[in-house]
Amino acid sequence: MTILIKNVLVEGREKNIYIEGNEIAAITDAGSGRSKVREAEFVIDGKRKAVIPGLFNGHTHAAMTLLRGYADDMPLHEWLSTKIWPLEARITEEDVYWGTKLACLEMIKSGTTFFNDMYWYWGGSTRAVAESGIRAMLSAVFIDGFDEEKAKEQIKRNEALYRESKKLPKRIIFALGPHAIYTVSEESLCWVRDFSERHDLLVHIHLSETEAEVEECIKRYGMRPVEFLDRIGFLSSRTIACHCIHLSRKEMELLRKNDVKIVHNPGSNMKLSSGTLPYEELKKAGLYANIALGTDGCASNNNLDMIEEMKIASLVHKALSGDPTSMPAHEAFELATRNAAKMFRLNSGVIEEGKLADIALIDLTKVELVPNHNLTSNIVYSANGSCVDTVICDGEILMEGRKVNGEDEIKEKAQEVAYELVNRKSP
Amino acid sequence: MTILIKNVLVEGREKNIYIEGNEIAAITDAGSGRSKVREAEFVIDGKRKAVIPGLFNGHTHAAMTLLRGYADDMPLHEWLSTKIWPLEARITEEDVYWGTKLACLEMIKSGTTFFNDMYWYWGGSTRAVAESGIRAMLSAVFIDGFDEEKAKEQIKRNEALYRESKKLPKRIIFALGPHAIYTVSEESLCWVRDFSERHDLLVHIHLSETEAEVEECIKRYGMRPVEFLDRIGFLSSRTIACHCIHLSRKEMELLRKNDVKIVHNPGSNMKLSSGTLPYEELKKAGLYANIALGTDGCASNNNLDMIEEMKIASLVHKALSGDPTSMPAHEAFELATRNAAKMFRLNSGVIEEGKLADIALIDLTKVELVPNHNLTSNIVYSANGSCVDTVICDGEILMEGRKVNGEDEIKEKAQEVAYELVNRKSP
Repeated sequence: MTILIKNVLVEGREKNIYIEGNEIAAITDAGSGRSKVREAEFVIDGKRKAVIPGLFNGHTHAAMTLLRGYADDMPLHEWLSTKIWPLEARITEEDVYWGTKLACLEMIKSGTTFFNDMYWYWGGSTRAVAESGIRAMLSAVFIDGFDEEKAKEQIKRNEALYRESKKLPKRIIFALGPHAIYTVSEESLCWVRDFSERHDLLVHIHLSETEAEVEECIKRYGMRPVEFLDRIGFLSSRTIACHCIHLSRKEMELLRKNDVKIVHNPGSNMKLSSGTLPYEELKKAGLYANIALGTDGCASNNNLDMIEEMKIASLVHKALSGDPTSMPAHEAFELATRNAAKMFRLNSGVIEEGKLADIALIDLTKVELVPNHNLTSNIVYSANGSCVDTVICDGEILMEGRKVNGEDEIKEKAQEVAYELVNRKSP
Repeated sequence: MTILIKNVLVEGREKNIYIEGNEIAAITDAGSGRSKVREAEFVIDGKRKAVIPGLFNGHTHAAMTLLRGYADDMPLHEWLSTKIWPLEARITEEDVYWGTKLACLEMIKSGTTFFNDMYWYWGGSTRAVAESGIRAMLSAVFIDGFDEEKAKEQIKRNEALYRESKKLPKRIIFALGPHAIYTVSEESLCWVRDFSERHDLLVHIHLSETEAEVEECIKRYGMRPVEFLDRIGFLSSRTIACHCIHLSRKEMELLRKNDVKIVHNPGSNMKLSSGTLPYEELKKAGLYANIALGTDGCASNNNLDMIEEMKIASLVHKALSGDPTSMPAHEAFELATRNAAKMFRLNSGVIEEGKLADIALIDLTKVELVPNHNLTSNIVYSANGSCVDTVICDGEILMEGRKVNGEDEIKEKAQEVAYELVNRKSP
């Protein structure tokens, strides 16, 4: 497939973008004599639109869209134990499929072309992602509860999923998803470490999200979470550590030494009062390029809008540091694009020839983007997901003029599934 | 004019809403035998929509939409002195008119039907508001810089504006706008106090926004800002005090004693690293019903989306208090509706017969509102301004199906004016 986007703003200048297969094949000056407009199967009018890299949602549990607004404003443990876990105990693969379909739709509609997921029923998620056209890294929740039998099951299951993943479209990437150090045994973590190294797989883990996690780790292993993972050789440049809130200086240094990747989830962390990623300190420790942004799941955010997430990220660091220059707009934007692409080993995250055609067009006629003194500022501080007009992922047009194929059916069916799920009797 | 909204969700039930003149004349069960549908000049299909009170933006400087994204991520004083003030020195009434037109458009598009404004060129603002159909309380910036001559001018000007305001449509309300205690002399503040009492006018003031303000006040008057205003008898139930970040216990008690109204601007306060309103403490002091929400101006937010502001408000208090039950969704929603209506002495802020027809319809088919387990949660935590489909203010339809009359011209002209302003030579 070939796509031509005519007269679109690329960093303030009108250009033509020519997409061939799943790549940006050429970017030429619009209207200049030298640029002959190539023919293409699809032509998109880019007038009054600006192109940006498709956004990266670095950490989510996509199918939790089903639980959006189901339980909010509760103490963390009560929320988990009385609301989220009982529901998740009766969730089915079909639920996960529809929840993930809804999530993919929401992400496409807000300019996200990649997400990093960890959830139950990997088969449901992969089916939804395969159909949606979005790019994703999908891991199955690996929890053994320190039980040897369960550990064996999980290992067997992940080996099978890894084999299965080879049959999927290339835009679906398999990752290992050990849930956290308080739900996965040391033995299983070591298996993850070895399997990830052998097959060069990324590892998606929750790390130092709450103070309770740190305290429990000190009790169990006599050291803090990052220290423990370093001791067992778990940490590497393949580790995608999500949250990373409660860190000592020494732990930050260990993260740097091991080139660990970090996903910041400011909205979820604020909503659950978990604390905040020590952004300025991590930057000082040399980890800036290793940080991406995520929304977390919809039960704790409650949307998947990465444009909103960039603003929340910047605001919370300005507020906490007392320094209005903290996390300027261009950094928040890089966290959601360039940094994330590198972290997930994708040839994208910037608009350049030869990069993957994972892009979004911003509608510059939206009132919140007028005037346009500074597009990055406008996107980060004023826009929201509804300012995205067109989304292309892997060279396919997933949304044009805010229309996505099959949208109504997805919303209706997912809503039905969600209502049925919350009213379902325990098994 | 009469408007009938058919089959719209009112607190979870399908109703018909009948609007006559500028009031909600009747709310009847949809589809029930007893409710004969009255005829109306305009009929709106409310299917898959929910009605909410139009939102209140409790504090803004509307025309600053012109400076959206013009200067961000800078230290406060440098930002004001090198960017904002020099531009404001050369702003004209025509600029203010177009900036306010743009602001009104943005507010209508995000469900806001009332805003409380303080800015230069009151005439420009009132003209824009009169044309837009939105409801507003407009004050002229009153700054005398502790100069007796300027004070006299300002007093004369405000007396004239007050007289002029009587000719305006009733939905435009005149208020006094003494900028702050560090820009207005004690004598002028006393004049404001007396004039406001004599004519029963609300008074819009910035109060305790920065630590520097508090320090300066202690130097100048030997006491803290709220103590000073209490001493001169300035505080009353007519005082709309914006920001209120740096408050002692004693000051909170003085605010309560004087029934002062408070506007919280979390987005702006975070972006400028000003600190945060002590929400839980003010609630404990019995001031909950006196608190509303505002966006502040677009130079420091950078949009006027009250739906986004509700989320930011709730998140920042959950994050700072360490308590995820802090400012639950229904409180954030009340701050932007019921509380604000009372504060600005308007018979609105709730959906009831006899209330002003200042309402918004939410489009429940938006992907971020699916599923709809809890509408208030969805609006506060997941929606943004683009989920608003229809806006009615003072009984007039200002937006239907997201279309506002004259929208394109307003955006084009305001953009032109904004670019011309930032490139204009100093006078």
